[in-house]
Amino acid sequence: MYPQLETEAEQQKKATIVRLLPKSDNNGTETERKDPPPSKWKRRVLRHVPMFQWLPAYNMEWGIDDFISGITLGLTIIPESIACALLAGLPARYGLCSAFIGPLIYLIFGSIDKVIIGPTSLVALVSVQFTVGRPIEFAFLLTFLSGIVQIIMGTLKMGFIFEFISMPVIKAFSSATAILVIESQLKVLLGIKYLVAGLLSSVKTLSSRIDEANIADLIMGTCAIVFLLLLELLERVSRNEKRGKLLRICCRYLSTSRNTLIVLIAGIVSFIWLGQTGQVPYSLGKSALSSLPNFTVPSLSIETPERTYSFWEVLKELNIGIIVIPIVGILTNISIGKLTPKGLVDTNQELLTVGLCNMFGSCVQAMPSSGAFTRYAISTACGLKTPMANLYLGIIVLLALSYLSPYFNYIPEATLAAILICSIFTLLDFKLPLRLWRESKRDFGIWLLCFCVCVLFGVEVGLFVSIIVTALHLLFLWARPEIHVKIQELDDMQYICVTPGNGIYFPAINYLRERVLKACTQADFKITVVIDGHRITGLDYTAAQGISKLSSDLCRQADASSSILLILYCFPTDLQKLIDHTDNLVFCDTETKVKEFLTQESLRNGFINLKEHIRASIDLGYKIDME
Amino acid sequence: MYPQLETEAEQQKKATIVRLLPKSDNNGTETERKDPPPSKWKRRVLRHVPMFQWLPAYNMEWGIDDFISGITLGLTIIPESIACALLAGLPARYGLCSAFIGPLIYLIFGSIDKVIIGPTSLVALVSVQFTVGRPIEFAFLLTFLSGIVQIIMGTLKMGFIFEFISMPVIKAFSSATAILVIESQLKVLLGIKYLVAGLLSSVKTLSSRIDEANIADLIMGTCAIVFLLLLELLERVSRNEKRGKLLRICCRYLSTSRNTLIVLIAGIVSFIWLGQTGQVPYSLGKSALSSLPNFTVPSLSIETPERTYSFWEVLKELNIGIIVIPIVGILTNISIGKLTPKGLVDTNQELLTVGLCNMFGSCVQAMPSSGAFTRYAISTACGLKTPMANLYLGIIVLLALSYLSPYFNYIPEATLAAILICSIFTLLDFKLPLRLWRESKRDFGIWLLCFCVCVLFGVEVGLFVSIIVTALHLLFLWARPEIHVKIQELDDMQYICVTPGNGIYFPAINYLRERVLKACTQADFKITVVIDGHRITGLDYTAAQGISKLSSDLCRQADASSSILLILYCFPTDLQKLIDHTDNLVFCDTETKVKEFLTQESLRNGFINLKEHIRASIDLGYKIDME
Repeated sequence: MYPQLETEAEQQKKATIVRLLPKSDNNGTETERKDPPPSKWKRRVLRHVPMFQWLPAYNMEWGIDDFISGITLGLTIIPESIACALLAGLPARYGLCSAFIGPLIYLIFGSIDKVIIGPTSLVALVSVQFTVGRPIEFAFLLTFLSGIVQIIMGTLKMGFIFEFISMPVIKAFSSATAILVIESQLKVLLGIKYLVAGLLSSVKTLSSRIDEANIADLIMGTCAIVFLLLLELLERVSRNEKRGKLLRICCRYLSTSRNTLIVLIAGIVSFIWLGQTGQVPYSLGKSALSSLPNFTVPSLSIETPERTYSFWEVLKELNIGIIVIPIVGILTNISIGKLTPKGLVDTNQELLTVGLCNMFGSCVQAMPSSGAFTRYAISTACGLKTPMANLYLGIIVLLALSYLSPYFNYIPEATLAAILICSIFTLLDFKLPLRLWRESKRDFGIWLLCFCVCVLFGVEVGLFVSIIVTALHLLFLWARPEIHVKIQELDDMQYICVTPGNGIYFPAINYLRERVLKACTQADFKITVVIDGHRITGLDYTAAQGISKLSSDLCRQADASSSILLILYCFPTDLQKLIDHTDNLVFCDTETKVKEFLTQESLRNGFINLKEHIRASIDLGYKIDME
Repeated sequence: MYPQLETEAEQQKKATIVRLLPKSDNNGTETERKDPPPSKWKRRVLRHVPMFQWLPAYNMEWGIDDFISGITLGLTIIPESIACALLAGLPARYGLCSAFIGPLIYLIFGSIDKVIIGPTSLVALVSVQFTVGRPIEFAFLLTFLSGIVQIIMGTLKMGFIFEFISMPVIKAFSSATAILVIESQLKVLLGIKYLVAGLLSSVKTLSSRIDEANIADLIMGTCAIVFLLLLELLERVSRNEKRGKLLRICCRYLSTSRNTLIVLIAGIVSFIWLGQTGQVPYSLGKSALSSLPNFTVPSLSIETPERTYSFWEVLKELNIGIIVIPIVGILTNISIGKLTPKGLVDTNQELLTVGLCNMFGSCVQAMPSSGAFTRYAISTACGLKTPMANLYLGIIVLLALSYLSPYFNYIPEATLAAILICSIFTLLDFKLPLRLWRESKRDFGIWLLCFCVCVLFGVEVGLFVSIIVTALHLLFLWARPEIHVKIQELDDMQYICVTPGNGIYFPAINYLRERVLKACTQADFKITVVIDGHRITGLDYTAAQGISKLSSDLCRQADASSSILLILYCFPTDLQKLIDHTDNLVFCDTETKVKEFLTQESLRNGFINLKEHIRASIDLGYKIDME
């Protein structure tokens, strides 16, 4: 079938529509495919409440997949949340509090299918730096303020700032986090208890106190790690098409529920051991209250038996935490969003949703939460279809919180450490730097910088430094843009052709002038300069002034009798008016006109053999003074 | 004369030279014109000691011009320095100390002919914020540290950071300075004495204490202003070709030495008045010691009768002053340099030279100094040829310092205020914002922002904020580059043509993907996407990954049976290897190949009437399955 060819006008119209439409706001791609296009109001609702996008088409098949995924994820998120809570220096129970309200809100407002909101080791690791040694209320208030900051950023459409975080930075950041989390869990595996900030001093303390290691903790942890790794290998079996279907399904569920299994097994071991001897040789989780959390709006000031913190004091104590935590949290969601088939993330919608999760989360005493790569991997493996899985997950967590809290005390800390280590291990990626080293040294440099600073001075410092460095590099590109300067020929007439690679803004104008003046000095004879504006995308006042000044420079470069002509070729009309007109500066829009000016100049400077070129000049309509 | 046409190879060589040479370091243009080119070592000396550039060609004619300019400038700089010293809150004498060592150093190392180093109201106004209310030694140490910072910046070739200050910012900054200096001198004109920081509170204090105004000060100041304005008008007479030569010369010298004249006259009036009545009704300059300053390296710690400041305490007190003062000082020099015929400024050399001036200046108890627009105007009017004028100027200031110091006490403060007001008035430029308003709203916005912040919160805050805002705008340009997306046709085959305006770096890649995907959604039928890499100047790893991902996006957009082909047209080879190859992504370097791929795709998708296009396809070497 050969589609009816559109008329020229129709095509023009279509092209215009294509060029105009993308400037409208960031709607999901799905919504536009429908015919007729939904009203603006409807599109808005669809955008901000993505649930309405998938709910109308929800069917039984999806429902079964989502149910299975939800249960599996629920069983995974319970031990993970407890481990993250311990990493954040909080009792186990508060991890679970974060794991039920987030998913329920994300069910309605979440725009990325496979993001499961909950505590993550990354956020826990960063937030512990701002709450360590302070009353527990600081953690909830940090959650609340993070949520507020995220909502404000989303409302102000500040999502685009995340575009300034490049992939090497994200990768280095997550690898460094993995290293730091693993290091922080080593001491738990060894049963050594201390509180030291910074990787170097922590490693130093650990090595000096290595003889205090508790062999029982180590055995428990190692067994857990081996168990988790073995079950993880089962996933490969499940993907092997040669095996029987039942075996494959069994392997898949065994593999995806490995975290729950190890916690169950270790818990039962502890329960029996305690029942028989009254104590166990390894550390157990901290005691926790058993009951559903109250829904209370957190108070902005904190009162403890020792002292009262006013809101401003709290802000001062939390410091940049209320900026870093929201950014780190959203970063994970965006990274996951980029991995999903849809590929494009509506960052502002994510900011609003995660902001809501955190804000309501703080009302049920949650720690700051976000999506996690580990949960993304599991939801992909289970074939999760829609965010409906969040509903089942939330219910499971709620049940665990209501009835299982007393039993959390039987979970060995080393087991939880093993879960954290195994789950964060996927974030360690050292293939990327190798590839960058081969193919893009600059990106490798950024990776290395970010990684080292993150590991040595903390992830938030590393992130900040790398963003600044990459931004400075982008700025530098404006100061030293690609400018081609070469001598070209048109009808035997030579001229200096200057082709700026892109927009010329103020930082670049002196560089452009220098390049042109050098070329003129190099070309001993007087030679016209043509600046090709084809590729110029922008020009500001300073740069426009610089171009006018360049024409004066060219006047002075030549001797008194004559000046070098500066031809501005194909400059957009709106930029032309910014440039001050001088005697030796002309604008041209066609090559014919350039040729005319070149001929004129060559005649004036005596470079052209008059007779030879006389006919051409007459053709061009020039009166030649034949004295 | 028709110059021998070069062979193709020679031209190629020349073009290469022209393209290669400008990448070498920033030498002055002059030095290269000489034949044979000077050795690298010689060029270095010539660059760093510009005196050797002009000294060999020095002649009698230049000498006379320089002598006259030097004397005139000397007579101007004396009252100006005293006024600036008072503005900076220092005794008169210290202004003169700054005005003799700077010029002598600039004579040797200065690269801009018409810059005369000395105290300026701009630098004085900024530095007083960091030294006010502190011992006088702080001022000298600020000079010393500013010099050190400038030398460090020059050595590290950090001059390029000044390229990030756009012209609207410089203009707004200097206009705001003018407003602030004039406001600060109003109280002196009115004879009211108070010390208040900030324009608003100063205006408030002034208006509440306006009834304390001393009418004698006001009369003295107003007379001085009128006198200065009248003599300034004489300059017009000197430029009127119709007048006699002698009259014109007289007018010129009267006009250029107006500052000295008013100080002389006012001083004599005070001297006589004091001699007759024993007191004058207006304020006189502060008492000053009479003697040449000692040459002593400033001590890094400051001891006063009340307390001792260690070096760190001094640094803490001076705060950002040691960064702001060097930058503000160099800014003026660069701005002047851009006004001179040469037009190009070697910023690093200027940093080194002014740094030396400040460092040695602090050894003779000088305040921070730099070039000044007022002195540039005078040196242009006097026809100054080379920096030799600095020598005569320095000697005159030295003589004044040795023998005239006691007489400085006779100069009325209102006269000095009048000199400052009249000289800074030239910096007020409100024509530029009007033009910017008409021609470039964005530049106008920057001007307005910089001006308002400078006036309301201090010039250093304004400068900082504007640089940040302009830098953020440049960064934003990388996030939202110009990307043309339109449907084009090649041999009746339609395709989506995507032309990114310049380099695609990580902040822009999602924007590019969104634009392309929208265009594909818009074009209901399956249509090949061609990204035209002609104008792409750079690509980083994140962007390259994004392009690979775009090809996967296109796979998913189409239905399962087929995928949309992504053709990357004319991508530089070194960028190609960064992009992961996928099934539906091909690289093309010629239009023929693009046509081939388009035909192939159209055949596959059934868009082409087979019979009609069969011959074309066979021509292209395609086997067509004719089942």
